[in-house]
Amino acid sequence: MSEVRQKAELAKQTTSILNRLTTEQKNEALQIIATALIAGSDAIIAANEEDLIRGRENGTSTSLLDRLALNHERIKDIAEGLRQIVDLPDPVGDILETTDRPNGLHIVKKRVPLGVIGIVYEARPNVTVDAVGLCLKTGNAVVLRGGSSALSSNRKIVEIIHSALATSAIPSHAVQLIEDPNRSSVDEMLKLNGLLDVVIPRGGSALIQNVVQNATVPVIETGAGICHTYIDGSADLEMSAAIAINAKVQRPSVCNSIETLLVHETFARAHLNDLAQRFREAGVELRGCDQTRNFVDWAIPASDEDFATEYNDYILNIKVVHDLDEALAHIQRFGTKHSECIVTNNRLHAERFQQEVDAAAVYHNASTRFTDGYEFGYGAEIGISTQKLHARGPMGLPALTSSKYIIDGNGQIRQ
Amino acid sequence: MSEVRQKAELAKQTTSILNRLTTEQKNEALQIIATALIAGSDAIIAANEEDLIRGRENGTSTSLLDRLALNHERIKDIAEGLRQIVDLPDPVGDILETTDRPNGLHIVKKRVPLGVIGIVYEARPNVTVDAVGLCLKTGNAVVLRGGSSALSSNRKIVEIIHSALATSAIPSHAVQLIEDPNRSSVDEMLKLNGLLDVVIPRGGSALIQNVVQNATVPVIETGAGICHTYIDGSADLEMSAAIAINAKVQRPSVCNSIETLLVHETFARAHLNDLAQRFREAGVELRGCDQTRNFVDWAIPASDEDFATEYNDYILNIKVVHDLDEALAHIQRFGTKHSECIVTNNRLHAERFQQEVDAAAVYHNASTRFTDGYEFGYGAEIGISTQKLHARGPMGLPALTSSKYIIDGNGQIRQ
Repeated sequence: MSEVRQKAELAKQTTSILNRLTTEQKNEALQIIATALIAGSDAIIAANEEDLIRGRENGTSTSLLDRLALNHERIKDIAEGLRQIVDLPDPVGDILETTDRPNGLHIVKKRVPLGVIGIVYEARPNVTVDAVGLCLKTGNAVVLRGGSSALSSNRKIVEIIHSALATSAIPSHAVQLIEDPNRSSVDEMLKLNGLLDVVIPRGGSALIQNVVQNATVPVIETGAGICHTYIDGSADLEMSAAIAINAKVQRPSVCNSIETLLVHETFARAHLNDLAQRFREAGVELRGCDQTRNFVDWAIPASDEDFATEYNDYILNIKVVHDLDEALAHIQRFGTKHSECIVTNNRLHAERFQQEVDAAAVYHNASTRFTDGYEFGYGAEIGISTQKLHARGPMGLPALTSSKYIIDGNGQIRQ
Repeated sequence: MSEVRQKAELAKQTTSILNRLTTEQKNEALQIIATALIAGSDAIIAANEEDLIRGRENGTSTSLLDRLALNHERIKDIAEGLRQIVDLPDPVGDILETTDRPNGLHIVKKRVPLGVIGIVYEARPNVTVDAVGLCLKTGNAVVLRGGSSALSSNRKIVEIIHSALATSAIPSHAVQLIEDPNRSSVDEMLKLNGLLDVVIPRGGSALIQNVVQNATVPVIETGAGICHTYIDGSADLEMSAAIAINAKVQRPSVCNSIETLLVHETFARAHLNDLAQRFREAGVELRGCDQTRNFVDWAIPASDEDFATEYNDYILNIKVVHDLDEALAHIQRFGTKHSECIVTNNRLHAERFQQEVDAAAVYHNASTRFTDGYEFGYGAEIGISTQKLHARGPMGLPALTSSKYIIDGNGQIRQ
């Protein structure tokens, strides 16, 4: 039997035990893991060093090496993240509906764990711990397949987690790490119907698309964000500039930052040149439509390809639009249904925008950068769903649960 | 452009109009369709006759021809089904959560339509109308791909629906019928990411498996049911017999009927012979494990393959188990997570069974035949989900919706 199937079966065998655990037992296990990770910091850092050496030899980029690198401070933060999960309410067992039928059947719809969750991710060892914490807190087993360039780090981290779990109520087999570095091990995971209840990809768009295109197991698609801010004709320059610049430059590498600014022509005539200067001062390269270039002659011409690109960088497209309809049509064409914003003083325009834009989060007069589980008050985040099934937008712990109907009767049969 | 892509794009173009419709507008459109279908009965029956003639020529089985056949009575029932959907509450627009954040952001999570729903089904023209009613009521566009042997019927029905919609607030393009009878048109639908938000298969397990195995679009898996009733040692003969026989014979062809009876050995010693006689009188063929055959010598030996088969027929497997654990293990191995039942007077056993069995609906002392949207009080049913994401068990109208976050600020930016 392959490594992938064998480990998935071991994980699945733990689900009925996980199902019965109390919140206290799960929290205690997470605390034990947090303590063990800190105690094992030196060993983790030594394993991480192996990954970093291999990465440097293979010419891995500095930014990827930075994401891969662990030190005492980062391990402390990772352990702290686990303790924050402990503090969150446990959604498992929540009663979602109760119905008493005329025939006497008593029907209760209850939250239950999903079962076994597969996580496919890149070379970020912090995701290993984060995913384990979120899955175990919700009573799920987890099969991890991290990027092969973090394998030594992940192996050591999971070894420590296994030892920690051995002293807890959670079976060690509830956490499985796929070590096979070949892409075929991902492909095999994506087709484990009956063993995995869901696969969640966490990473860049190539990774996500591979999962979406090849999985027969249900997937929660996360991540890709071509987000827009539309500045309406009546918008105030200072608020517009603050929101748009924040949405672009506060952290350009993340999915809820914007790639394109849509500007109503009235606003453009009055303020676009000024606004463009502010972006220039913030270090942003501007690419504009023809009309934009009438106001900002130094902007590079923007193509349809630019409007369809998630730069994740200090680059912004600008398009001048004739009215709200044109802005809505542009977002419908190029948006990825993640986060969209209108800046306006016109209440009717705001309502229409929020009603008609098809996206997980639609803002009026606030930066798209707020689309985030922590900013929404969920206390944790498994990712930001850009699909419409199951969960949409920032996913808190309930997104890692399913439901089940518990029906009590006294001999009812169907007529 | 292919027929499939072209029609899906037309459907998608209607979503922003559908999104804005009031409940009254949607209900009025369904009423107009119901009236038009009755008025068009003769034309529908004539088109249906073409399908039936073709079916007979191709040697289609009597039971399939029966499912395909329409007459005035059936068309009246179908129209009545639409009017029942009118009476149901509209879930779109429901507020699911409201949060006020310390920074002043006001976050509302609202129910919205899914967008465009693909339905892949067999030669049952009633599903055409049913799917249209459920999708339009929830503000979704729908792309229908019915079995090719019902094509004439479906074409006429959709023609009538289109004419009816032309006099309503719903754009006719919101309902699309794929007419290409080749399997490749299904395969193309399953990969229309970006145009279809979900595909729901309705039909037998071959159809469902084809969809699950080939779709890159999100799927809601429905249907397959290998369901069990476990009769515990302390169970009463009369209640056990009533529940088990109802679950098998009241309608053997449906997914919530049982395929296997698990019997505690104490009960088996006292009552299995008697119970087996009652099944024989109800016309059920029995296949038993070795122990079963000690009590019921005329039962055919049951193989693992039998335990893994959804008969949908007057055939039942019986297995004698040593204890509750053995029953749970058997269900975990052979069940399809649909509906499972324990008959017992032991409250602790009932609780353990309901807690540990991983299925959409878990019964204590009632027939599994109740797993149904109407029986659960939902007033309609899109299907019974056997997956754990998005919806599990009988799906009412809310299963055809997603959600979206509407966020209002006054200039908030992220620090």
